[in-house]
Amino acid sequence: MPRSFKVRSKKAGLPPGSLVHIGEQKREETRVTILDYDEAHVEEKEAETVGECFPFKDRPTATWINVEGVSDVQAIERLGGCYGLHPLVLEDILNTDQRPKMEDYEQYSYIVLKMLTYHDPSGQVQAEQISLVLGQNFILSFQEGKEGDVFGPIRERIKTGKGRIRKMGVDYLAYTLIDAVVDNYFIILEKLGERIESLEEALVVNPTTGTLREIHSLKREMIFLRKAVWPLREVISSLERGESPLVRESTRVYLRDIYDHTIQVIDAVETFRDMVSGMLDIYLSSISNRLNSVMKVLTIIATLFMPLTFLAGVYGMNFKYLPELEWRWSYPVFWLVSIAIGVSMLVYFKKKKWI
Amino acid sequence: MPRSFKVRSKKAGLPPGSLVHIGEQKREETRVTILDYDEAHVEEKEAETVGECFPFKDRPTATWINVEGVSDVQAIERLGGCYGLHPLVLEDILNTDQRPKMEDYEQYSYIVLKMLTYHDPSGQVQAEQISLVLGQNFILSFQEGKEGDVFGPIRERIKTGKGRIRKMGVDYLAYTLIDAVVDNYFIILEKLGERIESLEEALVVNPTTGTLREIHSLKREMIFLRKAVWPLREVISSLERGESPLVRESTRVYLRDIYDHTIQVIDAVETFRDMVSGMLDIYLSSISNRLNSVMKVLTIIATLFMPLTFLAGVYGMNFKYLPELEWRWSYPVFWLVSIAIGVSMLVYFKKKKWI
Amino acid sequence: MPRSFKVRSKKAGLPPGSLVHIGEQKREETRVTILDYDEAHVEEKEAETVGECFPFKDRPTATWINVEGVSDVQAIERLGGCYGLHPLVLEDILNTDQRPKMEDYEQYSYIVLKMLTYHDPSGQVQAEQISLVLGQNFILSFQEGKEGDVFGPIRERIKTGKGRIRKMGVDYLAYTLIDAVVDNYFIILEKLGERIESLEEALVVNPTTGTLREIHSLKREMIFLRKAVWPLREVISSLERGESPLVRESTRVYLRDIYDHTIQVIDAVETFRDMVSGMLDIYLSSISNRLNSVMKVLTIIATLFMPLTFLAGVYGMNFKYLPELEWRWSYPVFWLVSIAIGVSMLVYFKKKKWI
Amino acid sequence: MPRSFKVRSKKAGLPPGSLVHIGEQKREETRVTILDYDEAHVEEKEAETVGECFPFKDRPTATWINVEGVSDVQAIERLGGCYGLHPLVLEDILNTDQRPKMEDYEQYSYIVLKMLTYHDPSGQVQAEQISLVLGQNFILSFQEGKEGDVFGPIRERIKTGKGRIRKMGVDYLAYTLIDAVVDNYFIILEKLGERIESLEEALVVNPTTGTLREIHSLKREMIFLRKAVWPLREVISSLERGESPLVRESTRVYLRDIYDHTIQVIDAVETFRDMVSGMLDIYLSSISNRLNSVMKVLTIIATLFMPLTFLAGVYGMNFKYLPELEWRWSYPVFWLVSIAIGVSMLVYFKKKKWI
Amino acid sequence: MPRSFKVRSKKAGLPPGSLVHIGEQKREETRVTILDYDEAHVEEKEAETVGECFPFKDRPTATWINVEGVSDVQAIERLGGCYGLHPLVLEDILNTDQRPKMEDYEQYSYIVLKMLTYHDPSGQVQAEQISLVLGQNFILSFQEGKEGDVFGPIRERIKTGKGRIRKMGVDYLAYTLIDAVVDNYFIILEKLGERIESLEEALVVNPTTGTLREIHSLKREMIFLRKAVWPLREVISSLERGESPLVRESTRVYLRDIYDHTIQVIDAVETFRDMVSGMLDIYLSSISNRLNSVMKVLTIIATLFMPLTFLAGVYGMNFKYLPELEWRWSYPVFWLVSIAIGVSMLVYFKKKKWI
Repeated sequence: MPRSFKVRSKKAGLPPGSLVHIGEQKREETRVTILDYDEAHVEEKEAETVGECFPFKDRPTATWINVEGVSDVQAIERLGGCYGLHPLVLEDILNTDQRPKMEDYEQYSYIVLKMLTYHDPSGQVQAEQISLVLGQNFILSFQEGKEGDVFGPIRERIKTGKGRIRKMGVDYLAYTLIDAVVDNYFIILEKLGERIESLEEALVVNPTTGTLREIHSLKREMIFLRKAVWPLREVISSLERGESPLVRESTRVYLRDIYDHTIQVIDAVETFRDMVSGMLDIYLSSISNRLNSVMKVLTIIATLFMPLTFLAGVYGMNFKYLPELEWRWSYPVFWLVSIAIGVSMLVYFKKKKWI
Repeated sequence: MPRSFKVRSKKAGLPPGSLVHIGEQKREETRVTILDYDEAHVEEKEAETVGECFPFKDRPTATWINVEGVSDVQAIERLGGCYGLHPLVLEDILNTDQRPKMEDYEQYSYIVLKMLTYHDPSGQVQAEQISLVLGQNFILSFQEGKEGDVFGPIRERIKTGKGRIRKMGVDYLAYTLIDAVVDNYFIILEKLGERIESLEEALVVNPTTGTLREIHSLKREMIFLRKAVWPLREVISSLERGESPLVRESTRVYLRDIYDHTIQVIDAVETFRDMVSGMLDIYLSSISNRLNSVMKVLTIIATLFMPLTFLAGVYGMNFKYLPELEWRWSYPVFWLVSIAIGVSMLVYFKKKKWI
Repeated sequence: MPRSFKVRSKKAGLPPGSLVHIGEQKREETRVTILDYDEAHVEEKEAETVGECFPFKDRPTATWINVEGVSDVQAIERLGGCYGLHPLVLEDILNTDQRPKMEDYEQYSYIVLKMLTYHDPSGQVQAEQISLVLGQNFILSFQEGKEGDVFGPIRERIKTGKGRIRKMGVDYLAYTLIDAVVDNYFIILEKLGERIESLEEALVVNPTTGTLREIHSLKREMIFLRKAVWPLREVISSLERGESPLVRESTRVYLRDIYDHTIQVIDAVETFRDMVSGMLDIYLSSISNRLNSVMKVLTIIATLFMPLTFLAGVYGMNFKYLPELEWRWSYPVFWLVSIAIGVSMLVYFKKKKWI
Repeated sequence: MPRSFKVRSKKAGLPPGSLVHIGEQKREETRVTILDYDEAHVEEKEAETVGECFPFKDRPTATWINVEGVSDVQAIERLGGCYGLHPLVLEDILNTDQRPKMEDYEQYSYIVLKMLTYHDPSGQVQAEQISLVLGQNFILSFQEGKEGDVFGPIRERIKTGKGRIRKMGVDYLAYTLIDAVVDNYFIILEKLGERIESLEEALVVNPTTGTLREIHSLKREMIFLRKAVWPLREVISSLERGESPLVRESTRVYLRDIYDHTIQVIDAVETFRDMVSGMLDIYLSSISNRLNSVMKVLTIIATLFMPLTFLAGVYGMNFKYLPELEWRWSYPVFWLVSIAIGVSMLVYFKKKKWI
Repeated sequence: MPRSFKVRSKKAGLPPGSLVHIGEQKREETRVTILDYDEAHVEEKEAETVGECFPFKDRPTATWINVEGVSDVQAIERLGGCYGLHPLVLEDILNTDQRPKMEDYEQYSYIVLKMLTYHDPSGQVQAEQISLVLGQNFILSFQEGKEGDVFGPIRERIKTGKGRIRKMGVDYLAYTLIDAVVDNYFIILEKLGERIESLEEALVVNPTTGTLREIHSLKREMIFLRKAVWPLREVISSLERGESPLVRESTRVYLRDIYDHTIQVIDAVETFRDMVSGMLDIYLSSISNRLNSVMKVLTIIATLFMPLTFLAGVYGMNFKYLPELEWRWSYPVFWLVSIAIGVSMLVYFKKKKWI
């Protein structure tokens, strides 16, 4: 539900570029880790203060500064100052309700992504904002700071020097970071796919009000997912086709690959949406069907017994002159007639395919 | 409802450029305030007559003339005359049912926006038209004149000289004005978001006819909001990409920022629309569900008692030769049979999952 | 309903450019009025024969020839011959089921518009086709010829010389004619808006089958209106942006103004459509709601009285050995039990919120 | 219904350009007629064998070769060989399930159209494929060969030399052929319009299951029609704007005219679709409405008689001590009470507007 | 259902270009067949090891290497190494959940297609991924390796030298391969068309819950089909219009032909979708209709017998003073009245058209 603009209003009235953290605070202190590498060496370091990052700025090596937790406004302002970030970029880093976007500045490109996590019992998908600043020889990445991220294997690869990552520049690193985020979407989709699958089964076997609520909740997850994924397409397409000198030709082919993945994710989300709304139709039809079968039972019972009850009522009348009452075989005849009526009703219903 | 073109018809037949005020008159007299500033000085002044604005025209300083109330046609005509506004611009300023738009004229750009306010008990969103005329060194802003606007903090910032506002030109001022209007949308969205949230809860707990009316009314607010917000996207995008020399390069990056916000607002409105129409589906399903459960109760009761009533009717018959009547254990056997029928019915319903 | 292509078929098989009048004949004879003016003079004249128009062709003054009634094929053919109109243009003038369009020919531009009128008791919107031929120094306008048009005030303005109309060329006159037609749409919209408003009230107070029919009929008016209005957007946009030398630069700004109005009209039509289809949803929900409440009444009554009737039936049985029959307090106890059953049922329904 | 790709599968696996006739065989032998003309002369001839067409190829006069029946593969192959048609064009001529399209080849343009016919009792629209090959000085037209076509009046015009058709080239002839096909659509639309109109009336007066089936069948006709008409728009637009030297400048204005007609047809089809789906809504509402009124009758009856039946049951009980039984006025009082209950129920229902 | 991204997640975290087989393993060993040909000779060979393919690389003849089964990662890597394929291409070949796409690399073009098969009892459509690598003088094709493919006739044509296939280059071979895949879609469509047709009949004759499930399952097949077919349009259009020197001018006309077929397939899928969702509407209406008729039966029965039962109950009362009980003709009069009531009810229902 309105997961995304809850506290935006606290910024209204402030001058543009005012640095205020917007969003749920997911981590108390800010944790800064530096990974500096070139083909030959690699250096990892956890920075106590933001100031420790500054010396890396002028080194020719590739530097990846990862900031977890964006509620410490001062620290981020200082870092931004050192790396020459525009106040609006800093503002966007702090406001964690951005939609995915890409903006070219002269010295760097600024990219906003959403990292998604799936909460297992509730089935809710949650988003964490990832901001990337891609410079000539550095990448700054800002996470909201929930425990855990999807970048672990990348760090490992850099440290061990496996693959081509150490040989390629920071643009390739940017690509691998985005790729990790997008690859993670497939896991979310798989989880949602399982949920849909089990929901479809429930729908066929025994649809309840809970099924309806589940459909509704899935629909909302889809709306949420869509918002995170659709804009990505444009982001990556503009990275790929963009004229930014920060992205080398050799990296573009990889970006095209992520672009394909993004399209695949969007495709899947749209397919899910189609499926979920199809399920609502099925649910409604099955309710109607059940109403129909309930009504048939009622109608059959009423149609069977109403004439019979009337008949019994007739011979319960106290008229003095009611000849049948005196007859010897009245009672057995009454039963015969009753059973005949009952059977003919049942035959009629059978013919109408009600039973 | 038809909140927007109610009295437009009174213009039909008049020559183009005829100055007639269209819309609800929200304020009797027109109030004109002048704010003239450059980096070094600032001068604020409430003008008695429109004439007091004229001297500011030729000053090199930045001048912001804010007009509240647009029903005094003469005053606005005179002001327009002094600042060289095209008759069609004046017409548009007076007709408060414009949709947001941007028009480039040679000497100035004309921008129409909608300032929204949320009325708390009724939950209605209302719009006030803001017209901005951005010239080389002046901005004219026209409001319909309801009490209060969203520009207070900007005035404060100019007067105190906080931030970069005094150092940048009038194009930056235009940006801050638009930004204030757009930022205000987030507050409206938040309010609507809360309403949707509480409606969703009501929908789950106890949907009533009132819920339906609330859904319907929310839907209408969305239609209304959409009309105010969608065109804005184009307005700001054409300001940003436009070739107007009035907007300096340094300001464009800020406009891109508002553009992002606008997209976010549109996104939110669309998400809300999706949610609200999803709610209608849920409401309809829950009505059907309830009908189902009502019908089940009826069917169970009827199916239980109809056979029994028939049976009681049978032994209420006055046939002379009805052997069971004479038997000693007829009555207890009758009850046993009745209970057996009742229990077997209930077991049947249990098996069918009706109870 | 199929108001627009009813008799088109009578043209099938004829060679292109065959002049056949298509559409309802709204006027018997053709009436031609000429208005010739420049800044200094004005001359108005009702032409007996079409031939009287010919001398005006070569005058440098602006000439507006207005033709009411297009069923006199010969007259229109002669006029077309004199002013050099292409056979296809003449064909389109006669076929009154065109959609709005603009076509540039070398010597002139041809514009088709729809003038709408609202018929008050039935609430039907009807269209009359207006064809404009804009030449270097003349305008030919063709109306189907229903009594009355929206051009009265324009004639007045030309004759009295009020405003800038006499100073500007025929392109400005074309603009004012189109503007008059578009302004008239607002009146139609207002009327429809009122109808929607009163329908919404009826929907809340007491929805009947008549409400449904009204919704349906409004929907059809919207479909009809849409067809008249949507293409207009392109017409005016291509007039404004077109490279036709017939439209002077100074007139373009006015065309932009009509363009805005057209967008406003389209917006309103779309909003109305949204509202009307929302109303259908509400109507359906309220039917379901009512069914629900009817069924509840039935269920409550049946559930109350069926057990009681059974009980009464039991003690109406004629068993010889039925001990309760002999007891002294049986009857009052029966009533007590009955009332107890009734009350507990009601409590149960109360708890289920059915009553 | 799957009217269009039923036997396509028999081509799967064949090399491209394999000439196999696909579609229902509508005519046994192939009939070839030649119409050769210029401004001065005209020659009509029914060809016994395809070979008779060959001499016309090199004549400077305009030649129209019309082929009815496309199941004689050899004949068409020979004709194609003589006129230099690409194997793929021949393949497309034989496969009668093409969608309308236009393809430029170096020496000629290939156009596929659908000629529609309306079958009166069933109300089904059927399509026949028309292939046109427009060369420098010849037109080949291929029809599937059902009895009758829409080209009769054109032949007449060529033979009598009426109109400008003999003076203009084959491109103008191509235009008249397309125009005849499109004009014919209006007749189909008119028929469908009448069907819709009568359906709407039935819907208001007495909607039955037949109405539903009719709505459904109309919907399918619309889907079918759409497929034939939508692509036409692009076909004609690319003919008009195309750079093909085969289409002279003077003919383009006529093509623009057909383009307009096509848009009109599409418009009408879309309007019909809107109307038909609106009718489904109305149908569903009217079913619900009727269910409502049925249920009201049931509820009123049950609510009236259930309490009364209970009351009668009470005084049918055989309790020894049941004081009312002995009273003198019990019976009349019983009736009075019964009537009072009945009347008050009716008043209640009246108030609830159920009766 | 989520047939397409089930195991994608096992790649998350791996470096890009990591070769992991994704998808169901459809075949254990990889089978490689080589077909080398020019106009004069043809050589077919089943390769034991991938290495046997290498010598063909530098031959000027056209070489088609077909690989069935993509789970042997090493073999594919070696083949890719020899033919200079980019790691991302190899990755895509192994990941069998790609959507159709075309990518130009410097030395070759990479094309992904979906080959569909229809499983007859279940009616499910299944997809197998076909990857084509089109080089200067070679084509590599990779299939997932299910038994059987659609390329048999093409092999035959190459071997026998029938048609133009041996004279044209590998680009023409690529075209025939794609054409075979697309032609195969028509067979699938035909099967689905038959299913829809039989479903429509079932819907009219006797709609059951099974019909609903069938509709739902068809809807899902459509969603699945759409995903395989829609992107194809872009693939082929970019092949046709692309500037790749690998595709000769003479082949482009054939690609245009496949493009047409693709559009036809898409058209058919969309038509099917429309039809299937129309069927859901019909199904829902027919359920409502049946509910209506059930309720009518119930209402008629209840309305008939309730008053009669009441009447019988009245004369079953034991009042001492109940004059009718003593009358001579009470009983026959009772029956007369009962029948009169019954008949008048039936007349009433007849008039209301319920029976």
